[in-house]
Amino acid sequence: MQRIVVLAGGVGGARFLRGLRAAVPEAEITVIGNTGDDIHLFGLKVCPDLDTVMYTLGGGIHPEQGWGRAEESFTVSEELAAYGVGPGWFSLGDRDLATHVVRTQMLTAGYPLSAVTEALCARWNPGVRLLPMTDDRVETHVLIDTTDLPEDQRGEGEPGRRAIHFQEYWVRLRASVPAHAVVPVGAEHSKPAPGVLEAIAEADVILFPPSNPVVSVGTILAVPGLREAIADAGVPVVGLSPIVGDAPVHGMADKVLAAIGVEATASAVARHYGSGLLDGWLVDEVDAGSVGDVETAGIRCRAVPLMMRDLDATTEMARAALELAAEVDA
Amino acid sequence: MQRIVVLAGGVGGARFLRGLRAAVPEAEITVIGNTGDDIHLFGLKVCPDLDTVMYTLGGGIHPEQGWGRAEESFTVSEELAAYGVGPGWFSLGDRDLATHVVRTQMLTAGYPLSAVTEALCARWNPGVRLLPMTDDRVETHVLIDTTDLPEDQRGEGEPGRRAIHFQEYWVRLRASVPAHAVVPVGAEHSKPAPGVLEAIAEADVILFPPSNPVVSVGTILAVPGLREAIADAGVPVVGLSPIVGDAPVHGMADKVLAAIGVEATASAVARHYGSGLLDGWLVDEVDAGSVGDVETAGIRCRAVPLMMRDLDATTEMARAALELAAEVDA
Repeated sequence: MQRIVVLAGGVGGARFLRGLRAAVPEAEITVIGNTGDDIHLFGLKVCPDLDTVMYTLGGGIHPEQGWGRAEESFTVSEELAAYGVGPGWFSLGDRDLATHVVRTQMLTAGYPLSAVTEALCARWNPGVRLLPMTDDRVETHVLIDTTDLPEDQRGEGEPGRRAIHFQEYWVRLRASVPAHAVVPVGAEHSKPAPGVLEAIAEADVILFPPSNPVVSVGTILAVPGLREAIADAGVPVVGLSPIVGDAPVHGMADKVLAAIGVEATASAVARHYGSGLLDGWLVDEVDAGSVGDVETAGIRCRAVPLMMRDLDATTEMARAALELAAEVDA
Repeated sequence: MQRIVVLAGGVGGARFLRGLRAAVPEAEITVIGNTGDDIHLFGLKVCPDLDTVMYTLGGGIHPEQGWGRAEESFTVSEELAAYGVGPGWFSLGDRDLATHVVRTQMLTAGYPLSAVTEALCARWNPGVRLLPMTDDRVETHVLIDTTDLPEDQRGEGEPGRRAIHFQEYWVRLRASVPAHAVVPVGAEHSKPAPGVLEAIAEADVILFPPSNPVVSVGTILAVPGLREAIADAGVPVVGLSPIVGDAPVHGMADKVLAAIGVEATASAVARHYGSGLLDGWLVDEVDAGSVGDVETAGIRCRAVPLMMRDLDATTEMARAALELAAEVDA
């Protein structure tokens, strides 16, 4: 039985995983999920990326939106707003909230996030083993300059650089101002969650789905020991470009790529990961011209359709990634 | 301006307060609310009696039910049940839940319950000052005998006496088995909340609404110093019987009265409070025959209609209580 490890962010990672599960239903898939976008809201611990993977694979996701629950209502949020409790910019549905209530209750009782995630998945049966990258608290912050904001949004205090939570940058500001730095706060002192290094060591292939290379895959790789474990695993590591035709397929990856000085192109992202980590890289057919550039960097590269239009298209992408893995392994 | 202090439980106390507010709109009313029925559910701090007072006076109560929010939905509870998280026997609506989320978040941040209650009331404008009896944790437990339960409800372990949370006794078991004792756990080490003793000392009259004499008013009086402050206040203390025609008007007060060896009659409850505490007592007209019995115990007594059928009837009850207070004061 093939053992596959996938480093996943939110929407892109989750959709890719649906395709991968369909491509190789017999494989044992372990997902190492990003927790850098976790946030505490109303005293509740919210793990957007873990939940997006869990809901998507468990059949509870809002299908068009790609995050949050299907058939969602917002009664609790409206009531919280009536109490003047914010933030109003983060959408928290009633169904989704129940997940955070259960999670927070278990964390408060002393269970680590990995055990809580396993308990939540017992309901959703995602068909993969979902592990948080770490049980330690890591929250990604983005350094912005308040003078880049419209005057009415600058807030109190001296104008200048300010670190805000990634969710505030992504959801409230919609990445509308330059990110001067992206910092996974707490990552340097974090440890991989139980099972993470073991899964990497036992993997037959490791995949990077078309997730955000900075705030999703990049944050996972920032957990000490994780990048080294992948580089040293001695198995094919294959990624799929989240950039198609010089624009992110989903989200606003170009905004945070700029913060780390990486061009928003399929080949620049591959070179950012580097041949020390990546063995293979898939770019979209519209980026076929960059295949040579990626291969020059020592990374095997193929151009295939990379738009996750539906489950069939995504399944084909997963097959192409596994084929490229077999090829570099040969 | 007349200053009135009211010791209130849940539904009965809240409905009486609506009448009192209508009877004397200019009065300054301080409510000392029972917190002995507080319970932690899903990691959230739930204060049913405080909320019933707040919602009833603030216009958010479910009108027929007498507790919980109007136009309530139960999406979060259904989701919690889908996670296998209990207890299913406690109804927790979505609108109501938002109150508990705000409360728990503030308590976790370090605010005392009295400050949290004030913050919540800023939304509801109940027209009274609502104080919890104490900021300390007090939770009423009921001693039952598991052998009194149907066999399939006895649970694990040795059969015999077991202390269960009051809400479990009241809501899950619906007081269907004998209560052998009622214990306000934590009360003996609790202190009156800020403002409670001051309000009593400055009161012109103190009222006991037709709330449960054991688990509502009795629990409030169990906070050390509170009973003495009322007895020593030197102002009229007038109560309204929660028992009409030898049955509780609302709830199952007779079940817990039995636990403390008090008969479920209007006069027995008055004698239980005693002339050291009570100056006046209102019984329903159907209990007019017990007026002499109460007066023999040194408590002025009048028989008036005591069914809170609507706001008018309740307003009349409040007027009668204040008239009796004026009479004993003369």
